[in-house]
Amino acid sequence: MAIITLTTDLGTQDFYVPYIKGCLLSQFPQSQIVDISHHVPPFDSVKAAYILNHCFRAFPKGSIHCVSINPNNVEDCPYVMMEIDGHFFIATDDGFFSGLVKQNPAWMISLIPEEVDERWITFPSIPFFIHGIKHILAGSPKEAGTLLSDFNRRTFLDAYVMDDSIIGYINYVDKFGNAISNIHQQFFHQVAKGRAYNIETRTSEFFPHT
Amino acid sequence: MAIITLTTDLGTQDFYVPYIKGCLLSQFPQSQIVDISHHVPPFDSVKAAYILNHCFRAFPKGSIHCVSINPNNVEDCPYVMMEIDGHFFIATDDGFFSGLVKQNPAWMISLIPEEVDERWITFPSIPFFIHGIKHILAGSPKEAGTLLSDFNRRTFLDAYVMDDSIIGYINYVDKFGNAISNIHQQFFHQVAKGRAYNIETRTSEFFPHT
Amino acid sequence: MAIITLTTDLGTQDFYVPYIKGCLLSQFPQSQIVDISHHVPPFDSVKAAYILNHCFRAFPKGSIHCVSINPNNVEDCPYVMMEIDGHFFIATDDGFFSGLVKQNPAWMISLIPEEVDERWITFPSIPFFIHGIKHILAGSPKEAGTLLSDFNRRTFLDAYVMDDSIIGYINYVDKFGNAISNIHQQFFHQVAKGRAYNIETRTSEFFPHT
Repeated sequence: MAIITLTTDLGTQDFYVPYIKGCLLSQFPQSQIVDISHHVPPFDSVKAAYILNHCFRAFPKGSIHCVSINPNNVEDCPYVMMEIDGHFFIATDDGFFSGLVKQNPAWMISLIPEEVDERWITFPSIPFFIHGIKHILAGSPKEAGTLLSDFNRRTFLDAYVMDDSIIGYINYVDKFGNAISNIHQQFFHQVAKGRAYNIETRTSEFFPHT
Repeated sequence: MAIITLTTDLGTQDFYVPYIKGCLLSQFPQSQIVDISHHVPPFDSVKAAYILNHCFRAFPKGSIHCVSINPNNVEDCPYVMMEIDGHFFIATDDGFFSGLVKQNPAWMISLIPEEVDERWITFPSIPFFIHGIKHILAGSPKEAGTLLSDFNRRTFLDAYVMDDSIIGYINYVDKFGNAISNIHQQFFHQVAKGRAYNIETRTSEFFPHT
Repeated sequence: MAIITLTTDLGTQDFYVPYIKGCLLSQFPQSQIVDISHHVPPFDSVKAAYILNHCFRAFPKGSIHCVSINPNNVEDCPYVMMEIDGHFFIATDDGFFSGLVKQNPAWMISLIPEEVDERWITFPSIPFFIHGIKHILAGSPKEAGTLLSDFNRRTFLDAYVMDDSIIGYINYVDKFGNAISNIHQQFFHQVAKGRAYNIETRTSEFFPHT
């Protein structure tokens, strides 16, 4: 039973998400569809990548992760399918993938669906999802399009050291108000070397227990 | 494996939706329950019909679409089950069905459940859902009640032509702020005949590229 | 096919809930995961108990109800698994269980997972969920930890009679604004004995039809 996950900015109040689910269940009745989130801020594919990056490895290998954030601009942002750590991803190449992983995928292809039905005008992702999933389930994922040598890479700011400080920025604020920075634990310990520290933001200062 | 969809105004914060799901899974353990939306505005069965109308055909034929919007007023709005395009619908006859489709259903019945348990006082939809689904899965849906010759038909305003204008109104505003009017594409082209046009609303005017 | 329900305060916008679902599906691919709610107010385990108490009996016996509300403070609030009315519950013992039921469970244990991986630092519930579910599915739930004789009992205010009045308080307000009090029907009828009544709140007065 294939696991298909959905990450979108479509919300849960309209008919968009159930439409996609209905299409996938019609084509792949044995699949199990799992919502990652439908509350990604509109068009924010970097946030979608952040969310999916932090949970996809919890799913079984072989899971298929479908992302619909900027589905309409196919000429500038073609649909790409790739394999990372045994997981499959289908999304438009609008910078999403560079937010998803730093490593190179096992392979990546530009998806070319057999037919793009007039029905899909409101849901341009659907023929690409169906086409890619069909080939994954048939055991020949790479035959769903043409091999790519690279994807659209955005530059993200890394944390850096200046004098006795680490300068970073906030990547994500969750629903509890937890602010998650781009200063990773390993880098922090490498620089801090066990010294006492304080945390400064633009507007306030914290003195954590060390 | 039967697909059962749920469209309600019950939200996702209370115990109402999981109660319904628990009852359905207890009765029909092989079924797969798919959420259409639980964020229909309270008591707005026309909006529920709009949402379901725009996605039900994406699901496999034979899917069972359960709707709980005005569940309490059974005397004025009896529970009706009907078949449209190979899909089954169970909802109260409060005008919902006239928002769902213009065509006539293959058949429609007034549902009469065998027993209405005291347990269901908070969830009056449940015995009707269970009763209807049981008969659908047994292959004899029409035996779940008495045949009806018609349902509660509401009048909806159609778009119309006045001088050189088409007058319509907004049916639905989605989460992105897209306003969906009742001026359908075919009617628009029929009247516009390829001429340039502008769009006027009560408060603003748009000049689209033509 | 095991039914596993999830009740959390984690919301649906972040990667927390899909992370938990991914872990459960990786460990228990045959299970069916059902959302109770992820919109419990943060850290409000009493509200979580209220919600779950009002719907868990709708699910088939043998269902496993996982609750993640105060997952971090394991020393003060250990993870407890218990059986009530043929249903299994896994939650931290922070008062949740005294909100869930008044009766004593069939049995209750303090869960001791085999391994607590570093991975789980953000998701401390997960090893406890997995450990408990594994033993339930293996048919030996009580072997997942050490038997307890009691759980953390909070005192809840009961409604009481003063002169000709019943004094109670509001337990829960649902999304429609329905206020649910702790004055139960049976107690009300016992005291009212069919007499006319009115309802007073701190700020208003209602005269229902009697």
